[in-house]
Amino acid sequence: MRYGWRARIGHIAPAILDTSAEEFRKLLPDGVLHVGLTISEPIQTLGAEQAAAAFERMVEAGKRLAREQVDAIVCGGAPVALSRGPNGDAELADLLRRETGLPVVTANGAVVDALQLLGARSLVAVSPFLESRNQEIGKFLAASGFRVLATRGLGLVNNIDFATQSAEAAYDLARQTAAAHPEAEAIYIACPRWPVVDIIAALEADTGKPVVAAAAAMVWGALRALGIGKSRPGYGRLLESLRSSAAPPAGRGL
Amino acid sequence: MRYGWRARIGHIAPAILDTSAEEFRKLLPDGVLHVGLTISEPIQTLGAEQAAAAFERMVEAGKRLAREQVDAIVCGGAPVALSRGPNGDAELADLLRRETGLPVVTANGAVVDALQLLGARSLVAVSPFLESRNQEIGKFLAASGFRVLATRGLGLVNNIDFATQSAEAAYDLARQTAAAHPEAEAIYIACPRWPVVDIIAALEADTGKPVVAAAAAMVWGALRALGIGKSRPGYGRLLESLRSSAAPPAGRGL
Repeated sequence: MRYGWRARIGHIAPAILDTSAEEFRKLLPDGVLHVGLTISEPIQTLGAEQAAAAFERMVEAGKRLAREQVDAIVCGGAPVALSRGPNGDAELADLLRRETGLPVVTANGAVVDALQLLGARSLVAVSPFLESRNQEIGKFLAASGFRVLATRGLGLVNNIDFATQSAEAAYDLARQTAAAHPEAEAIYIACPRWPVVDIIAALEADTGKPVVAAAAAMVWGALRALGIGKSRPGYGRLLESLRSSAAPPAGRGL
Repeated sequence: MRYGWRARIGHIAPAILDTSAEEFRKLLPDGVLHVGLTISEPIQTLGAEQAAAAFERMVEAGKRLAREQVDAIVCGGAPVALSRGPNGDAELADLLRRETGLPVVTANGAVVDALQLLGARSLVAVSPFLESRNQEIGKFLAASGFRVLATRGLGLVNNIDFATQSAEAAYDLARQTAAAHPEAEAIYIACPRWPVVDIIAALEADTGKPVVAAAAAMVWGALRALGIGKSRPGYGRLLESLRSSAAPPAGRGL
């Protein structure tokens, strides 16, 4: 049996593949292979011109993934997309779809779809980021129709420090933020570079709220697009929803 | 516990991370994280000038990995290095060491070290490659002091076709080639992009010869450099050798 006999999921990662690749693999079911490609834009401090260049490189990366016979593309770099404004994400996704002909899932887009699937109208959002980036996230979610009750971040400056957190960091921040806003209908955990997937189920159990974590939303979006009706169990309501709702798109029977 | 609490192994991959990242993860013990970065040189059809540019990009990639706090660097792209001649590999490794200050393991260098550790003086080599690349491999191994009794490849032209093989492909080709040269003291399986690690133990059992596969040699080299005294069990003699021989380098007690 070859790797990726069920599907090859291409993943465009800004900068580096460490936590996100590890966590994607935890979620992907048998026969679905992670196919990773990095680009090198310094995404945390991105001006408008750099953002335009980053878009071009992401589209180039998408084309390379298409040549590597991936079945869908997951595009990270949520901050890059948002640096072009709330519509940046949809623009990037459209561009990638047009140039590759493949299903495309962006980090921001998957999160919106996931929150909608879970019926959330209001939420709290947590991240490892500085306040300025949390505000961008809040703006994007508000523009997408959600009531954002709070955004809180660890305030970390360097991306490498996201990757060296323990998963307790996301759990603690999310639990505290949710406790301060008991009316929130969901918890959003931004950024696939700090570890989160191992605490999703516990956080849902302890707060009673559905949790959408960026890495989980990206994998969920790709599996859903490919009509794959399961993921590894134990990673929360969003991924469990694949078991009941999967219906293969026309022309692709998996 | 954070990912990579024991070590972060940086991996420079030419083109794409699919099979190699999957197989590295199978071999890495708990607490050792794969940190991947791709470059985009079209490595199969590389002229001398392109090779020089590829060297520069690999060194850039090494510096980026160092900034991502990796503890060692594994450098793929064996054909890139060999396209500068039999010394190209050592040149690239030296350059990376000098620029990053980190332990550096190259694909070709790890294979030579591994074959020496296993006491092999003669070998057969198999790959998914065309004949011209097999000849380059043969030349390199001969220049490194081994008697190369045969090199055989699947003759595949496109790299993506390496990744979509089943592991039987490497097993069958290696077993046949070894059977035709019973005096060979080892089997070398080149290229980390076709699947191999799951057949190493079976191939050793069935031929009685030690097997050095590129992916396994790269991981072994990195774990050895970091003084990590084990890997996941069941992947052959080379990786099992870590259990008995590990001695932490001075200044690093793991």
